[in-house]
Amino acid sequence: MITDSDIVQLIEILGPAGVSTSDADLKAHSVDESWVDPHIPEVVVWPETTDQVSKVLAFANARKIPVSARSGGSSLEGNPIPLYGGIVLAMYRMNQVIEIIEPDLQVRAQPGVVYSNLNKQLRRLGLFFPPAPGSSDVATLGGMVANNSSGMRAVKYGVTRDYVMGLEVVLADGRIIHTGSRTKKTTSGYALTDLFIGSEGTLGIVTEITMRLEGLPENIAVAIAPFETLENASHAIYECMRFGLRPAAIEMLDPEIVQVTNRQQGLDLQIRPTVCVEFHGSTSDIQDQMQYLQEICQDNGCLAFQTSTDTESRERLWSARAKAHESMQLEHPSMRLVAGDICVPMSQFGEMIRYAHQVGDAYGVVIYAFGHAGDGNLHTDIVADPNDREELERALEATDKIVERALEVGGTIAGEHGIGCAKKHLMQKEHGAATIQVMRDIKCLFDPNNILNPGKVLPDE
Amino acid sequence: MITDSDIVQLIEILGPAGVSTSDADLKAHSVDESWVDPHIPEVVVWPETTDQVSKVLAFANARKIPVSARSGGSSLEGNPIPLYGGIVLAMYRMNQVIEIIEPDLQVRAQPGVVYSNLNKQLRRLGLFFPPAPGSSDVATLGGMVANNSSGMRAVKYGVTRDYVMGLEVVLADGRIIHTGSRTKKTTSGYALTDLFIGSEGTLGIVTEITMRLEGLPENIAVAIAPFETLENASHAIYECMRFGLRPAAIEMLDPEIVQVTNRQQGLDLQIRPTVCVEFHGSTSDIQDQMQYLQEICQDNGCLAFQTSTDTESRERLWSARAKAHESMQLEHPSMRLVAGDICVPMSQFGEMIRYAHQVGDAYGVVIYAFGHAGDGNLHTDIVADPNDREELERALEATDKIVERALEVGGTIAGEHGIGCAKKHLMQKEHGAATIQVMRDIKCLFDPNNILNPGKVLPDE
Repeated sequence: MITDSDIVQLIEILGPAGVSTSDADLKAHSVDESWVDPHIPEVVVWPETTDQVSKVLAFANARKIPVSARSGGSSLEGNPIPLYGGIVLAMYRMNQVIEIIEPDLQVRAQPGVVYSNLNKQLRRLGLFFPPAPGSSDVATLGGMVANNSSGMRAVKYGVTRDYVMGLEVVLADGRIIHTGSRTKKTTSGYALTDLFIGSEGTLGIVTEITMRLEGLPENIAVAIAPFETLENASHAIYECMRFGLRPAAIEMLDPEIVQVTNRQQGLDLQIRPTVCVEFHGSTSDIQDQMQYLQEICQDNGCLAFQTSTDTESRERLWSARAKAHESMQLEHPSMRLVAGDICVPMSQFGEMIRYAHQVGDAYGVVIYAFGHAGDGNLHTDIVADPNDREELERALEATDKIVERALEVGGTIAGEHGIGCAKKHLMQKEHGAATIQVMRDIKCLFDPNNILNPGKVLPDE
Repeated sequence: MITDSDIVQLIEILGPAGVSTSDADLKAHSVDESWVDPHIPEVVVWPETTDQVSKVLAFANARKIPVSARSGGSSLEGNPIPLYGGIVLAMYRMNQVIEIIEPDLQVRAQPGVVYSNLNKQLRRLGLFFPPAPGSSDVATLGGMVANNSSGMRAVKYGVTRDYVMGLEVVLADGRIIHTGSRTKKTTSGYALTDLFIGSEGTLGIVTEITMRLEGLPENIAVAIAPFETLENASHAIYECMRFGLRPAAIEMLDPEIVQVTNRQQGLDLQIRPTVCVEFHGSTSDIQDQMQYLQEICQDNGCLAFQTSTDTESRERLWSARAKAHESMQLEHPSMRLVAGDICVPMSQFGEMIRYAHQVGDAYGVVIYAFGHAGDGNLHTDIVADPNDREELERALEATDKIVERALEVGGTIAGEHGIGCAKKHLMQKEHGAATIQVMRDIKCLFDPNNILNPGKVLPDE
C-alpha cells in the first residue's frame, strides 16, 4: 500500500505536475486495448528525465512497490496493466527525438516518441523506421521495444529487435546502464540489448533507444488477388516466400473480413480468401517481382489479379487490408474483439487458418482470421460481448485451442503482441519447465523484489 | 587438478575413445589461430551426444573443473584456449546435420558441423547459410554461434545471430534447455537464444542449433575499382551504403595488400586503395545496381572500373579480396599476424583506416588494413616476429590504440572475432563499469562455479 508519505516523496522526485492520484488518471492508466479487466493503480507518475526514472525505481525498490511502465496503452495482452496496483510509470512525456545521426542512418530517441511521429520527422530526410505496428499512431518506441513489436512490413524489413542497436536502461534499484553499440556488427560481451527487448518492462525501464533506420523505398506497388479456396491462397503465399520474392507485406484476409471491409470501407472486392501484396523497391525490381507474383497467383488459380502503383488508387486498394481491424470494430461497435496472435513456420500458415475456423465453429464464436502470412503470423479476432462473461470465456478458450495447435506444429504463442498477463499460462507449454526456470532466475537477478511489472510474461508459480 | 579418478569417471561417461591425456592431444587443443600463448589442458574429451555433454558438465561442476569448448580452433582472440587447464570439450565429433526442413528453409544441426560442409549439403536444394567467415573450411556452426561470427556477406545477409532461431544448450550444472522458436517472429519471453549467441561458451554449451536459410542468388557479379586516394575510395563506399545499394559484399583493400596479393596470387591490379563489390540477385537487379555503383565510383574519381559476371573470371577478380589473408601469410611465412577487428559507424570507416596507418607508422610496425567496409568492420593485421617479444608487445599496443580510437568514434572493440582473452581488458572501456557488473552477474547466475571457459569475455577483477 502506498502511503501519503510515499506520495510526498514521489512529488519531491517529479514535482507536483508529475504525480497524480486522481480517479480519472488512475482509471485512464488501468487498462490497455485487450480484453483483460482493468486494475487501478495507486498513483500515476510522469517522469521527464532518466534521472527521475532512476529515483522513482530506487524509491519503489526500497519500498517494494510495484512499478508498471506504459506509454501508448495499445497493447493487446494486458502487458502494462498494473495487476498489483502500485505505481504506473507513464513514459509518454519522455517523447523527444534526441538526435538523428543522418550520416549513419541512425536515431536516438526517448521511449515516449510515437511511432508515426518519428516517421514524419524522418520522411524529409528520406528515411524511416519500418516495423509499422497496426497501432502506428498510438504505439511508442518504448512500447515497441518492450514488446518487440512489428507489423505488416516485418516480412521484408524485420521486427523492432532488428533495428535497436543500443539502449539506456534503468534497473530495478535505480542503476543506469547502457547496452549495445552504434555499429552494424558487434561481438562484444553478452547481448544485453536483446535481453531487454521483448521483456515487457519486467527487467528494467528503457529510457533511451538508439536505432538504425532504412531509406524510403524508391517506389511502391500493391496487388490484390482473390482465390477460390483458402488452400490455393495460402499455397500461393507459400510459393512467393519459398521462391525468393521479397514483398514489403504479404497478407491474407479471409472472406468474412473482405465482406466486412467492403461494407465498412465502401469497397467492392470479391468475397473470397484474398491475398494482398505490397512491393517496395526500384521500378525495374518491382516490375520483375510483380510479374513473378502474378505467375505464382495464376498458377494457384487466382480469380483476379489487380495491381496499382499510383498513390491514391494504391491506398484505396490497400485499405482492404490496412483498415481490416477498424472495419471489424465498426461492424461490431458494442463488442469486444479478443485478439489472437500466433506465429507458425510458414509452411503451416494455411492449415492454421483452416484450423482456426474449425475451432470457431466448434466453440460457436464469430472468428476473423487474417495476418502477416509471409511471416506465418496469424491473427484471429474473436467477437465477444463484454457483458457476456460466458461468451468471453468461450472466446478465450477458443483462442487457447488455436495457440495449442500452433505449438504442435512448431509455432510460438506470441508473434508480435507479447505475453502480458493474458498468455502467461501458456509460457511453460511453449518453453518447457527447465527454460522457464532460467527465465525466472533472470527475472530474479534483475528484479529481486519483483517490483517491475509483476505478474507479466512468466507464469504464476 | 584433475585426478586419475576424474579420468576414470570421464571414461565412464565418454568411453575410452572419447577421452585423451596424450601429450599430442593436449598440445593440439592448447591454441587457436591468435597470438595468444598456448595453455595446455589436462584432458581432452570428445562428446558425441547431448547426454554426454550434460554428464561431463555435471561432473565438472561438482568438481569445479574448468571446461573450455572448442571445435575448429580458428578463432583469433584466444577464445577457446584453456587458460586454467581442466577439460577441453572438443565438439567436432557432434557433426551431424540432423534435419533440413526444406519447406520452411531451415536446418537443425549439431555444433561440430563445418560451415562449408553445411553449405555443400544445402547447395543441391538451392539453399545456403550466408555468413561466410574467412575460415569457412574450418569454422564450425558451434564456434560461429559462440562468437556470433560473420564475414564478407554480412553487409547484405547479416551475421550468425540473424539466422539462429533456437538452441539446445547444456547449462553448467548439466541441465538441458531449449530456447527460441522455429517461427520467423516471436515475442514470447526473454531472448535466451540471443544471450547464448556470442557468449563464447561462458554461459552454456550449445549442443544443437536451428537456423533459417536463404535461397541461393540467381546471379552473382563482381566489380573492382582502384582509387587515387583512400578518402575517395571510402567516400565511394559510404555513398553506396548511404544511398541504398545492397551489395552482398563491399570490401576495401589498402595499397599494401593489393601489392602483396598481386605478388602472391599473380594478379596485376593497380597498387591503389581498392574497392571490391559483389552483387547477388536477379539479372535486372544486378544490372541496375552495377550501373549505380559505377556512377558512384566515377563521381568519386575511380581510376578504373572492372566487372565480371561469369564464374571463372569473377573468381579470379575476387581472389584479390578472398585471398588477401592467405597472401599476407605467404608474404610473411615466419611471422605472426596480430589480427585486429574493430567496427565503427559506417561514416567513420575511411578515417579509421587512415588512423590505423598513422598508428602503424608511430609504432614502427607493418600494418595491413582491410575489411568489411559496408559494415564499418575494419581488420588491421600487424606483422610481428613470434620470437621477438618486444615486437609482439608493440603490435599489441598499436592494436589497442586503434581499438581505443574506434571507441571514441562510437565503435565497438570486436566486430566479428569476439573477445576471448585477448580483448577482455578493453571491455570496461566499451561498456562501462555498471554494464560490466550486469554481465558479471549474468555469468555468475549461469555459472556460479566459474567452470565454463573461465578467463574469457569479462575483464579480470
